[in-house]
Amino acid sequence: MRTPPGVEESEFRAALGKFARIVGERWVFADTQDVNLYRDAYSPLWGEEEDLTASAAVAPDSAEQVQAIMRVCNEHRIPIFAFSTGKNLGYGGSAPIYKDSVVLDLKRMNRIIEVNDKKHYAIVEPGVTLFDLYRHIQEKGHRLSMEMMDPAWGSVIGNALDHGCAHTTTYGRDRFHDQCGMEVVLPTGDLLRTGTGALSGSNMFAEFHYGFGPYIDGIFSQSNFGVVTKMGVQLRPEHEAYRAGMVYVPKFEDLQRLIEVEAHVTHSGIANGMTHFGSPVQGPPMGAPPQAMQQFFSNPELMKILAVPGRPDAAKLERYAADNNLGFWSADIKFHGPQKIIAAQWEYCQEKFLEIPGAWCEDHGPVVTFPLSREQEAQLNTFGHAEKVHLGIPSLNRFDMQAMMNDMMSTPEAPSAGHLYFAPVIPKDAASVLKAQDVFHKAFTAGGRRVPPGFFGRMPLGWYHRCFIYLMGFNVTRNKEVNQAEVALYREMIQLAAEHGWGEYRTHALFQDDVMRAYSFNDHALLRVHEAIKDTLDPNGVLAAGKSGIWPKHLRDARG
Amino acid sequence: MRTPPGVEESEFRAALGKFARIVGERWVFADTQDVNLYRDAYSPLWGEEEDLTASAAVAPDSAEQVQAIMRVCNEHRIPIFAFSTGKNLGYGGSAPIYKDSVVLDLKRMNRIIEVNDKKHYAIVEPGVTLFDLYRHIQEKGHRLSMEMMDPAWGSVIGNALDHGCAHTTTYGRDRFHDQCGMEVVLPTGDLLRTGTGALSGSNMFAEFHYGFGPYIDGIFSQSNFGVVTKMGVQLRPEHEAYRAGMVYVPKFEDLQRLIEVEAHVTHSGIANGMTHFGSPVQGPPMGAPPQAMQQFFSNPELMKILAVPGRPDAAKLERYAADNNLGFWSADIKFHGPQKIIAAQWEYCQEKFLEIPGAWCEDHGPVVTFPLSREQEAQLNTFGHAEKVHLGIPSLNRFDMQAMMNDMMSTPEAPSAGHLYFAPVIPKDAASVLKAQDVFHKAFTAGGRRVPPGFFGRMPLGWYHRCFIYLMGFNVTRNKEVNQAEVALYREMIQLAAEHGWGEYRTHALFQDDVMRAYSFNDHALLRVHEAIKDTLDPNGVLAAGKSGIWPKHLRDARG
Repeated sequence: MRTPPGVEESEFRAALGKFARIVGERWVFADTQDVNLYRDAYSPLWGEEEDLTASAAVAPDSAEQVQAIMRVCNEHRIPIFAFSTGKNLGYGGSAPIYKDSVVLDLKRMNRIIEVNDKKHYAIVEPGVTLFDLYRHIQEKGHRLSMEMMDPAWGSVIGNALDHGCAHTTTYGRDRFHDQCGMEVVLPTGDLLRTGTGALSGSNMFAEFHYGFGPYIDGIFSQSNFGVVTKMGVQLRPEHEAYRAGMVYVPKFEDLQRLIEVEAHVTHSGIANGMTHFGSPVQGPPMGAPPQAMQQFFSNPELMKILAVPGRPDAAKLERYAADNNLGFWSADIKFHGPQKIIAAQWEYCQEKFLEIPGAWCEDHGPVVTFPLSREQEAQLNTFGHAEKVHLGIPSLNRFDMQAMMNDMMSTPEAPSAGHLYFAPVIPKDAASVLKAQDVFHKAFTAGGRRVPPGFFGRMPLGWYHRCFIYLMGFNVTRNKEVNQAEVALYREMIQLAAEHGWGEYRTHALFQDDVMRAYSFNDHALLRVHEAIKDTLDPNGVLAAGKSGIWPKHLRDARG
Repeated sequence: MRTPPGVEESEFRAALGKFARIVGERWVFADTQDVNLYRDAYSPLWGEEEDLTASAAVAPDSAEQVQAIMRVCNEHRIPIFAFSTGKNLGYGGSAPIYKDSVVLDLKRMNRIIEVNDKKHYAIVEPGVTLFDLYRHIQEKGHRLSMEMMDPAWGSVIGNALDHGCAHTTTYGRDRFHDQCGMEVVLPTGDLLRTGTGALSGSNMFAEFHYGFGPYIDGIFSQSNFGVVTKMGVQLRPEHEAYRAGMVYVPKFEDLQRLIEVEAHVTHSGIANGMTHFGSPVQGPPMGAPPQAMQQFFSNPELMKILAVPGRPDAAKLERYAADNNLGFWSADIKFHGPQKIIAAQWEYCQEKFLEIPGAWCEDHGPVVTFPLSREQEAQLNTFGHAEKVHLGIPSLNRFDMQAMMNDMMSTPEAPSAGHLYFAPVIPKDAASVLKAQDVFHKAFTAGGRRVPPGFFGRMPLGWYHRCFIYLMGFNVTRNKEVNQAEVALYREMIQLAAEHGWGEYRTHALFQDDVMRAYSFNDHALLRVHEAIKDTLDPNGVLAAGKSGIWPKHLRDARG
């Protein structure tokens, strides 16, 4: 049997026996075939000795059971890695960062404890997915809107704790932002409630973040300081309607003005839906249907301009854009709210964008009104305008898109079996975007690696509140050499990003140390603070060793 | 000379000498008359032995000097208490919580490091006041709006770290919310930068909160874990216009519907300005001019209904309201943005509020457009509609109001010399508001204490994002017995609030332990976590002992 590093088999068996007494035999998994299910499905180390396997899994049903499990881990020094639902494809899935840890599978803890449609919040357990919460809201007839990511099979809590992003509104983009109130099992097994949850008899768990004194909820995000077993999430009233518009600008150098106007209308709350930036002459639009992508890449005139080393000739692209009534850059801007307000908002935004010489705007599909009937919901576009995710409706569309991305990365020699996400944040200005495009493009193609024409031109693919995320996928195959090269390039890109002052906001299980190392100010003062907190809250170092590059003392010392 | 507790005079003199070598002789204060300036001007212990005096003060000019000072404190075990500008009237001013600590006065660190009007942020030091930042923005011609509190003499950083509130927009209400990026001198003298500030060569300090790994900025709010020496604050584009409306409902029982509709339009971002709730028949409106207050309290018919023990008769008040075209409850709702959008928003809000039977709405003053000329700014109302604070313009109006409040609390026997703020948060629903009114009114009047008629009827005076703050002032005089009674009542109210599940979000220096004690879940797990972090980040326990009820180990042990 596989055992955690440094744990004798007899000791491990004793611990597993105790786990079984806590959660029941059927919720402890130690057979290889069961435990293998917890590996990362997209692992670049698939089948190799170093692959991030688990030694066993335990699936509790309550915070009390999590407490008891943590106590056993302390008693027997068992390393344990917690996850909510284990979807985290591209970032390591449910695999433990410290190989052969036990995995703490929280999927069974899927209770929706409260939904309040007068005050607009929910309180959930970690196993609750976006689908679960949406369906609950619909079934109860609550008039509430959700901030949606896609694929929506992920955990409401897990996504927030990983500083994940939603695709519905601007203010809901940052999923940790809407967190309010936490219950946490500390690594010692002690139980903590933060904010007003610490007030006995209080019923405002999800109504006030701070409580009194230091606001500590953030330390349980992207961390290994505790297992969050309950969280409040603030929701918003159901939107009355949704509409979208497209903005086009003709010149390469218009990008900065486009970004500035977008920042103006977004940061002031006037445009409250997600914006996507694009470049109609450099790549198919975000979420384009397959035939549009096909069409784009089979256009010989455009491919001739794009399929060159480095950045394509801007003048040629501008000319092509003008000849074909395309913009050089575009922004896809969205609005949620009562019809007359979003009409006024879109009208105002058009005025602002039209101050850019040569810019033009157009409606992007009809107005959608809520609530949608089941039939209307079923008829929603899978691609392009009014994707479910923009409306706050769960779907798996983007998993299809991810699968399609894998397909696009495939070559006959190395068919894709997944991808690794590389996600550096860069400043929200044209100079930074273009610089990042050049730097990453150069690194990406240096080893002779082919990228689709225009691949870098339409970046950044995503953004956070006030900055861009330069989201890129690295190919994972079943070929060891190909994977090694991808992993090496990923490491190189982290380093390259750091040299330009760009850091990743989240990363794959394999690169936690590399990314944290870039946050190096004053001899890694930030990591040293994290380590100090780790050592005091988890004195035996049992929980999620290595998460965010934070190792418990005994492993830090061992690793030098 | 006064010395810190447990520090020999010779040791203290040695430390003061070192402080002088770090900051210069003239920035170290140890003479009684200088040091006395750091006492709480509103102290209920004024002139008594227990008053929270300082032993000395030191005023550094840079983070490097703060680091050197902290190292001296560790070397000589000098307790030190940091503040930004020391305005904190009603909560303890600049007085140290642990009596005879040295005070670390950060007022000289008043650099505005950067203001970016394309990306809408500022980076400031702790001595920068709201006046400073506003003037800087105006002088440079930046088209940016600020979230304003009043009086605006306070520190941008200090207010955010105390989880303070602004009075301009809904989304800017929570001042810590807009924090982005921190530089912190740790109690050991080490220097930390959080978020992207930890990336060498990064220029996006105030553009992305999280960086990578645990988000720890919150632990430096309302805490004694470090001295924040630099902070990013996200601003917003200049608003084009401002308008306000009033909503009235006729019946006592309409309060819940009024709150629900307000929550609907506020939580969905449709009304983006601060709302105040009031009751025209139970108290003068928030920010009413003196003659309106005079008029209210000299109305014999109304006073006859109000001046009764307990809650006035609702039916009589409803009749009086109907006879005089007044509402029983009112909401004062505000909008910031382009004119046509805020017109549509107000129109929508009116439709929603008018669904409450008998409700009516009216415009509250004319539309104000930005930028204002100096002349227009000078002509703004001091009271009522379009107060400067609602427009994001700094003023001291509310200090005048506070002084007026002190006057109102005065009696010939005990003229007021200040007040203590009591600020419990309560859920945002009518049942909780009315329950809190009854509970606090009963406690307040139990000892024969007089309150102005209607004093409790128009509560809550404030709110946070999604809950109410039941803000109350306790009278401070120069009479020891009166003050003792007020302090005792304050303690009783903390206890009473806790019994109902309500906790304070912030409190006066004297009550830090009492308030933290109420956050008691699981044998004070929250405080125990705070103490663990305190002990690891401040092993000698030198910084701000007692803040938020967190004491360093040696004082915890000594205090039992």
